[in-house]
Amino acid sequence: MYDLVIIGGGPAGFSASLTARKRNLKTCIIYPKENNSWLTKIKKIDNYLGLINMSGSDMLTLFENQAKDMGVEFHNGVVQKIIHNNKTFIISIGEDYIETKKIIIATGIKKPYQLKNENKFLGKGISYCATCDGMFYKNKTIAILDELHNKDEIDFLVSIAKKVYLISDYPYSFKDTNIEILKGKIKSIEGDNKINYINIDDKQYNIDGFFIFRKTIALKELISDLELQNNFIKVNKEMATNIPNIYAAGDCTGEPLQIAKAVGEGNIAAISASLE
Amino acid sequence: MYDLVIIGGGPAGFSASLTARKRNLKTCIIYPKENNSWLTKIKKIDNYLGLINMSGSDMLTLFENQAKDMGVEFHNGVVQKIIHNNKTFIISIGEDYIETKKIIIATGIKKPYQLKNENKFLGKGISYCATCDGMFYKNKTIAILDELHNKDEIDFLVSIAKKVYLISDYPYSFKDTNIEILKGKIKSIEGDNKINYINIDDKQYNIDGFFIFRKTIALKELISDLELQNNFIKVNKEMATNIPNIYAAGDCTGEPLQIAKAVGEGNIAAISASLE
Repeated sequence: MYDLVIIGGGPAGFSASLTARKRNLKTCIIYPKENNSWLTKIKKIDNYLGLINMSGSDMLTLFENQAKDMGVEFHNGVVQKIIHNNKTFIISIGEDYIETKKIIIATGIKKPYQLKNENKFLGKGISYCATCDGMFYKNKTIAILDELHNKDEIDFLVSIAKKVYLISDYPYSFKDTNIEILKGKIKSIEGDNKINYINIDDKQYNIDGFFIFRKTIALKELISDLELQNNFIKVNKEMATNIPNIYAAGDCTGEPLQIAKAVGEGNIAAISASLE
Repeated sequence: MYDLVIIGGGPAGFSASLTARKRNLKTCIIYPKENNSWLTKIKKIDNYLGLINMSGSDMLTLFENQAKDMGVEFHNGVVQKIIHNNKTFIISIGEDYIETKKIIIATGIKKPYQLKNENKFLGKGISYCATCDGMFYKNKTIAILDELHNKDEIDFLVSIAKKVYLISDYPYSFKDTNIEILKGKIKSIEGDNKINYINIDDKQYNIDGFFIFRKTIALKELISDLELQNNFIKVNKEMATNIPNIYAAGDCTGEPLQIAKAVGEGNIAAISASLE
């Protein structure tokens, strides 16, 4: 059980992690193994106070080491779901679950693309979390869109479902006979009240469920009762969201999309999380 | 004429200065020659992202150099007054005046001590600015409380007044005959509707005006129509104060009193100042 889990490995998340440790919180920071912070793409940053003309990836390495030295724990993975559990939260990351008292969302603003009709079938056959929803598809036919290359999750679904269509470019090998690997492009998701089939290239595949494993999860998928404002997370001055014990910091709370602003908000969010 | 003047040489001020330059604003930062940021007193800081276990004074040196490299201009001194001037502001610093379109107040929270009855005689004989109010005391008797050791300002007042009592421990030498240096402790300021005399140790000195030159100026003295809330400057999400074109950042806007929060707010304030 953690006091605080921080979701996101950018400036806001790392800044929050330092202050949380300073306040003696047992703290875990979660982000994908290949950190997808936009910082990785910046060659030279010249307006973050204290670091002079450093590249974004050098900054991230420095931040990681600083957080490790402060005793922050790390977990690599994509958070798929935040689940309310009485007075704590359960966070699902692939097949792992982590329990925490408080959360800081610092996921940045990278928005996942959407497939045609994806929104329409949310909760009607589309899922982003094998561990959460897998059992609903026992002995049924499902498709998996695989961008995460997490074989354990795919194996889990293969062990449950009657038939699995895996849409992936990754060179997997499976011994199971109920899985078929497809390399085409998903054109659309179709159905009436629930999913009936997906179109891949020009071919139609009848399915009962569709698991989408992406590097980025939309905020509304992460936790559905989180209040947004113009696509950003709504926070007050203490960086608290509308959900008690969940805070947010950095680009996901709105403009300006700047390192210094993110670092400041991470600091405030961690202090708020340490109070009460 | 500057686009932006930043008052205060702490993390908020320096962070604002970098972003202001990045946005191409002609920018000046003003703080006392002996920087009075509380950072100077901190031996080891371990929760500012990117700088590991650095002392506050090393941080300030790094910040200064970074700002200089970005083309920020520096002015050493204590700002005594912000004066509205149609669409610009005039900032008085000792005998200097600087004109600017916008201002960021980043003065921290150091509060000046007050003498007994000091508040009572504001605008009734007490002044913090020789250049602003000196001429009101032509051929009159004044006292000067000298903590800044700015001889030019004292000389200016000596040239105007009939008689000057200078309360100072500094080893000055004056050729003028109308100045008397006193080494005692000011016990109180007395008068009816306006100042009549001050008590130094057990002796009474009749005066018409009293100039107080301190290292820190109270916000209400700096600019009287600035809206405060619990002694902090009231700002909105864009770090704008109630006065158009004046922004604030850092400890002076409220808790948490942390470097990261100050750096973030400085960044936001500079971006706001660069818009419009």
